[in-house]
Amino acid sequence: MDEGYRPGGGRLSELDDGECRELLAARSVGRVAFTDDSGPLALPVNYVVMDDDIVFSTSAHNIIAQHLNGRAAAFEIDDVDEFTRSGWSVLVRGSACFVEAVGDVPADRRPTAWPEGIRSLLIRIPITSVTGRRVHPS
Amino acid sequence: MDEGYRPGGGRLSELDDGECRELLAARSVGRVAFTDDSGPLALPVNYVVMDDDIVFSTSAHNIIAQHLNGRAAAFEIDDVDEFTRSGWSVLVRGSACFVEAVGDVPADRRPTAWPEGIRSLLIRIPITSVTGRRVHPS
Repeated sequence: MDEGYRPGGGRLSELDDGECRELLAARSVGRVAFTDDSGPLALPVNYVVMDDDIVFSTSAHNIIAQHLNGRAAAFEIDDVDEFTRSGWSVLVRGSACFVEAVGDVPADRRPTAWPEGIRSLLIRIPITSVTGRRVHPS
Repeated sequence: MDEGYRPGGGRLSELDDGECRELLAARSVGRVAFTDDSGPLALPVNYVVMDDDIVFSTSAHNIIAQHLNGRAAAFEIDDVDEFTRSGWSVLVRGSACFVEAVGDVPADRRPTAWPEGIRSLLIRIPITSVTGRRVHPS
């Protein structure tokens, strides 16, 4: 892709709450942003939206589980078109927590992590603060 | 997409340093992860790789500029295939800083932010700590 100098010109608009939620419901992979001892980081996870929460599964022993319970976190999805230099993104911010009563989540609705291994821990981030924006083609 | 219950089974492998750098060089949009007063967040930006740095442009007045200079940050790219439930991600972690001497960056290599408006501030994150992983189709 030609990344030579071109002034950016795409009109920027905010997505309203309903648009953000529709986009979250329509997607299945996003990035969870959190902090560990070295600072912030973001890792992709597959997820579902359930009862106004982002819910994803992980291993009880990995870096996400170690740093997410009760801590500030964010969840981001986006879609871009490099040709028209346009796209959108949605950001959920809140406090992540473990789903203690996994039985409350119907088995056929539980998100299953793509990688191999036991990833039976469910984590949720409430969709309370959600913002989004779109860069239109210039 | 059917997100019903299916055990995850994709083999997980680490990407080596060379693979991570090749993927970073081949892409043009990623997410910068950082923290503001409310905690961690991630926002998409278009970028270039220059002299072993991730470089992107932004407005001197926005949330990224306000919270990134000299602070711990991360930069993430990924690609997923929802049908085969596979994909890869690369994560750069380091300290972000403003490019003070913008003149050192050739005009034809400067990244230009997609949205409208003046975004003449260049920020770089050195590619010193880079990791990546791939989930193979199961």
